[in-house]
Amino acid sequence: MRETELIRKIRDIANQRGHPRWLRVGVGDDCAVMTPRRNRDLVFTSDYSIEGRHFTLTTHSAADIGHKALARSLSDLAAMGADPLFCLVSLAISANQNEAWIESLYKGLTRLGARFGIVLAGGDLAKGERITVDVMCCGDVPRGRALLRSGSQPGDDIFVTGELGAAAHGLVTKRGESWNRQKRPEPRVEVGRKLHRLAHAAIDLSDGLSLDLRRLCEESGVGARLGGELPIAKGATLEQALHGGEDYELLFTAAKRSRVPPQIAGIAVTRIGEVTNEVGKVSFKGRLLEPLGFDHFR
Amino acid sequence: MRETELIRKIRDIANQRGHPRWLRVGVGDDCAVMTPRRNRDLVFTSDYSIEGRHFTLTTHSAADIGHKALARSLSDLAAMGADPLFCLVSLAISANQNEAWIESLYKGLTRLGARFGIVLAGGDLAKGERITVDVMCCGDVPRGRALLRSGSQPGDDIFVTGELGAAAHGLVTKRGESWNRQKRPEPRVEVGRKLHRLAHAAIDLSDGLSLDLRRLCEESGVGARLGGELPIAKGATLEQALHGGEDYELLFTAAKRSRVPPQIAGIAVTRIGEVTNEVGKVSFKGRLLEPLGFDHFR
Repeated sequence: MRETELIRKIRDIANQRGHPRWLRVGVGDDCAVMTPRRNRDLVFTSDYSIEGRHFTLTTHSAADIGHKALARSLSDLAAMGADPLFCLVSLAISANQNEAWIESLYKGLTRLGARFGIVLAGGDLAKGERITVDVMCCGDVPRGRALLRSGSQPGDDIFVTGELGAAAHGLVTKRGESWNRQKRPEPRVEVGRKLHRLAHAAIDLSDGLSLDLRRLCEESGVGARLGGELPIAKGATLEQALHGGEDYELLFTAAKRSRVPPQIAGIAVTRIGEVTNEVGKVSFKGRLLEPLGFDHFR
Repeated sequence: MRETELIRKIRDIANQRGHPRWLRVGVGDDCAVMTPRRNRDLVFTSDYSIEGRHFTLTTHSAADIGHKALARSLSDLAAMGADPLFCLVSLAISANQNEAWIESLYKGLTRLGARFGIVLAGGDLAKGERITVDVMCCGDVPRGRALLRSGSQPGDDIFVTGELGAAAHGLVTKRGESWNRQKRPEPRVEVGRKLHRLAHAAIDLSDGLSLDLRRLCEESGVGARLGGELPIAKGATLEQALHGGEDYELLFTAAKRSRVPPQIAGIAVTRIGEVTNEVGKVSFKGRLLEPLGFDHFR
C-alpha cells in the first residue's frame, strides 16, 4: 500500500458523487481550492475523534468511525445555522488497519456527507499508534447571520431538538436505538438551516445539556431556568438527559413572540425553560444545575 | 485545569495581536466565522504532526512543536501561491502535559503565525495517549490563480527555493543550522505570494525532492530531467538533497521565457532541470531517479 495509491482511492471515493463547481480543486493537490458564494460568510470547525475516547475498534466498524467523526463536526455547522459545503479529513492509523479498512472509513464518512451535500475535499494521512480522525467542516450562512452562542437575551425561551440522554444510555446498554444514536449520531443540519429567522443563539449538545447550556450562558452573559419537562429518550435516566454527552441535539433560544413550531424539518422541538438575567446561573426545577457534562480536562 | 478555562487562555493567546475585521468570530464558539474577500478563491490544507513521527518530546520544546505544526501547513499555502488568513488547531495531549506546556505550544504557533499574518481562529482539544496536532490553514488567492501541481508543461524550467537536504542532515547531526531547520522549518510564504505571475505549477518539498517531483509530474502528465547542480545544504549529502524530507522548500516550474530571478523575496532560487513530455519519468544526470522520499505507508 503506497501513499500515492491510497490517496488515489480516497480521491475516487470523494468524487464518486460528483464534484460541485465551486470546488475548483479537491483531494490530491497541496490545498483544496474553492470559490465562495456571494454575500455569504463562511464558518469552520474541527473535531477530533480519538480511539478509546470517541470510539473503540471492538464496538465501532470503520464505517461507523467515519460516520461519527463527520457527524460531530456537522453538528457544529448545524449550531451555526450553516449549509455544509466541504470537509478535510486528517486520519492517523496504526499498523493494524489495511487498505479495505481505510476505504470503509472514508465510505462511511462520505455516505453521511452525501445526505447533507458536504463533499470530501482533502486532508492528511499519517501513521500513529492509535487511530485519530480530525474532521474540519466548512459551511456558509447569509452574511452576518451565523447563529452564535453569544446572542441569547433574558426572556428568551430555551428549546432543544429531539430527545436527550440517548447516547449516554446507549453507552451503558450497548444495544437498541440508543446504542445506534451513540454509534452513529444524527447531526441536526436541516433544523439548523431553518433557525436563522427564529433563534437568537444556538449550541450543539456534545458534552451534555448542563455543561453546554452553561457555556452558552457564559458567552451570552445570561442565566437559564429549566422548568418544563425534558424530552428524555426512551430508557434514559434524568441524569443521562441532564449530563450525558454526545446527543448532538441542538439547543437554541428564541424570543417569546417568535412562535417556534413543535417540529422543525420533521424533528420534535421542545421548550425546556427560559433565559434569565442572572449571569452564569443555571437552575433546573428551582435547584442549581451543576455543569457535570463531559469535560476532557477535568 | 478545566476545558473552559483552557479555551479562555487559548483565546487570549489567539487575540493577543488583534483580530482582523474579516474574522467575525474566532476561538470560542461552535465555529469560526469569516467574510471572504471579493474576487478571491480560498485554499485549505490540513497537516498532522504526530509525536514520534514529526517530533519527539526529548528533542522538541512545546514551542518548537507549535512552530513546526503550523509551518508544515503554511508551506502548503505557499505552494498554492496563497496569502495566509487563519488556522484551526486540533490538539490531543497526554496526561503528562500541563497548562504551561499547552500555552507554550500555542505561543510558539502564534509567534510564527504573526510573521505571516495568519491568525488562530479555532480548533479542538482532546486527551489522547500521544501528542498529535492537526493544523488546518486557510489562505486566499486571486480568483482562478491558485498554483496547482497539474500546470507543468513540457519545456518548462524546474526551480527550487533555498537549499536541499538540510532537514535530513539535521536529523543525523542534531545540531547547528541544519538541526534548526529540522526543528523549526521556515515556510516559503513570501516566495509563494510572488509566484502567480511566474510559475505554471508548484509543490512544497515535504517528503523529499524525488518523491514530490514525481507527484507533480504525475498530476501534470509530464516527466522531468534534472541536470544542473542541486543547491545542497552545507554538510548534507547528495542522497539527503535528493530524497530527504521536511525541507519545506518550494519546487516550481515556469516557462523558459519567464525570466525567473536568482532570488525571490530574499530567498535563492535555483534552476535544477526541465520538464519533459516523457510522462512520469524523472531522471537525474541521465539516470532514472527512484522516488525514495518519505512515504508514510511504505
